Amino acid sequence: MLLFSERLHVGVNKPVKKTKRATIEDVARKAGLSKTAVSFVFNGRSGVSAESQKRIMQAAEELGWRPDARARALSLSQTHVLGLVVKRDPSLLSTDPFFAGFVSGVQMGLAEHNYSLMLQVVSDTEAERLAYQQLVREAKVDGVFLTDLETEDFRPRLLTTLRIPIVVVGPPSHETENVAAVEMNDAAGVKRAVQHLAALGHKVIGHVSGNDKYVHTRSRRDAWIETLEELGLPQGPYISADFTGEGGARATHELLDLPNAPTAIVYGNDLMAIAGMFAAGDRGLSVPNDLSVIGFDDIPLAPYVTPRLTTVRQNAIEWGRCAALTLIALVENRPFPEFEMPPVEFIVRSSTGPAPHLPPAVTAPNHDR
Amino acid sequence: MLLFSERLHVGVNKPVKKTKRATIEDVARKAGLSKTAVSFVFNGRSGVSAESQKRIMQAAEELGWRPDARARALSLSQTHVLGLVVKRDPSLLSTDPFFAGFVSGVQMGLAEHNYSLMLQVVSDTEAERLAYQQLVREAKVDGVFLTDLETEDFRPRLLTTLRIPIVVVGPPSHETENVAAVEMNDAAGVKRAVQHLAALGHKVIGHVSGNDKYVHTRSRRDAWIETLEELGLPQGPYISADFTGEGGARATHELLDLPNAPTAIVYGNDLMAIAGMFAAGDRGLSVPNDLSVIGFDDIPLAPYVTPRLTTVRQNAIEWGRCAALTLIALVENRPFPEFEMPPVEFIVRSSTGPAPHLPPAVTAPNHDR
Repeated sequence: MLLFSERLHVGVNKPVKKTKRATIEDVARKAGLSKTAVSFVFNGRSGVSAESQKRIMQAAEELGWRPDARARALSLSQTHVLGLVVKRDPSLLSTDPFFAGFVSGVQMGLAEHNYSLMLQVVSDTEAERLAYQQLVREAKVDGVFLTDLETEDFRPRLLTTLRIPIVVVGPPSHETENVAAVEMNDAAGVKRAVQHLAALGHKVIGHVSGNDKYVHTRSRRDAWIETLEELGLPQGPYISADFTGEGGARATHELLDLPNAPTAIVYGNDLMAIAGMFAAGDRGLSVPNDLSVIGFDDIPLAPYVTPRLTTVRQNAIEWGRCAALTLIALVENRPFPEFEMPPVEFIVRSSTGPAPHLPPAVTAPNHDR
Repeated sequence: MLLFSERLHVGVNKPVKKTKRATIEDVARKAGLSKTAVSFVFNGRSGVSAESQKRIMQAAEELGWRPDARARALSLSQTHVLGLVVKRDPSLLSTDPFFAGFVSGVQMGLAEHNYSLMLQVVSDTEAERLAYQQLVREAKVDGVFLTDLETEDFRPRLLTTLRIPIVVVGPPSHETENVAAVEMNDAAGVKRAVQHLAALGHKVIGHVSGNDKYVHTRSRRDAWIETLEELGLPQGPYISADFTGEGGARATHELLDLPNAPTAIVYGNDLMAIAGMFAAGDRGLSVPNDLSVIGFDDIPLAPYVTPRLTTVRQNAIEWGRCAALTLIALVENRPFPEFEMPPVEFIVRSSTGPAPHLPPAVTAPNHDR
């Protein structure tokens, strides 16, 4: 087993500041609109023009007002609840090995400080927006986690405006420059995977990623591209799939149908990688003799499939725990804790091997002899 | 694919009744103790003798008082939050394929009625007890789910005393006679598995279960025993493992080391079954030629391992959804909804096959010839 040390980076630039309480009247006056209009905007109801909405949001931001201020003032204690809103088709969520690990870790962090977790699973962006607005306006939570950041993501801005403490969980993005983030350099794992394959003599190294809209998908793909460049290898073929077994199998067939088919594939998760091995077997190919396969996650089954899966291990549990401790510190206005995160590991098992010998070059028949 | 129809049974005997509000003074007077003592007991603090605790709990139960009564009276609305407390080592939770599916389904049910889920993961019984007491006393939730019922389980009694609506999720037990329960007859899946193996000619059918303390573990084991009896087959060897891959592999080796080793094994989950196939391969045995293997769960990977796993599919998502709708109805004092639960399915793939021919009988060498 090879270990690859890449430390988690907790990057925090501007934690949300605590300010004096303003009232809804102050916001209405500053915006030049009625209290009802302010209330409508923060309750997510329609009937307020875009221009008025903008003025209200701006006034609220400048005054540091948030809709639960009065409710909060009535209570000396905070809710001691943190929120996690997950936008995912519920039937897909159950196939995500990262989710349970991350949630478990969050719980470990919360338990250390007697907090609980409010979990909401929503299926689209509109429901997601409403969920956050409701959590904030009903003062149900003291802070929220942002996971699965997308390349165009409305949440950091919305939640900063709503003045609720947030911690972003995932690779850095331009959206997260001004917010607290618990970053894990998952790209380092992909880099190590590509280096391992190159050392085994592979020249055409493909990639099957998850959904392209996620920052972490882009981050892993960029790591694959950059490492190939560093090694002086050509960019291999790439397919963006969906993290499911079916998607992984289909993408594998597509890559292997190419004229310049890869002799090794790096997958965005273990489920796609294992389905990819199955697809290769269906074509009469042997893993790793004809095709090397690398996954991502190190799910509990990875050592029990045949061949045993070479993969990248992220410690989702510890990541969740650190995210929870960071968010609690932010909520309680304390300094951020120091973390000793376990390194990202690259686990070599049996699904990777030396590149197969190239087939004898097919030369055009010589009609001139 | 064979289908086995076994309908979910929603068994409800005595839903929690609504009663008039008593006050903490009433409870103290009835118990002959101070308000502080009552407050201490319901806040989980020490310093009250066991005898006094008992009197206070009894007085509260008789008066129908619960600690959040005043807080509730101040508010016209309920919290619209339901609680799920899971007692599991967080690092084990991430290996449970049922968890994410069930939670996803609960979320679907909650979303239909604009409820949210408060999730707590605790690691031992003491933390579990405190978690429930705190949820109730701080009026954080309107009702709670009880999962992973144990054969000796304090929760139904505690929560009935605390007068919070509960729904038990799982096979029936003597502890759940007086509470609402969403029951799934998972035993029916095990029965179908054993019948399938018997039809293939297997005579020695083993079983590797999960942890023996759970009602669902007992329920599946009993189904295995009863089906063998019904079929006139001898009881095969049995090992209680822990739902992990490592535990499944170890149990498989132990069963195969027996003089009367099974030719087929029914496992308590897919993870143990797949690890069991791997263990068999390690011993030079071929699945299904030398050993037939059946899992439980139908995880997303089950069709992508080699050989493809024959297994029992429980619809954890739909189960979670029905549990949520039932609990919401209970909280809102409405009639229970009618469910159309999908049947438990038995999925025949490639890890089961005809029983191997018995080795030729080894006869003692005849020294008398």
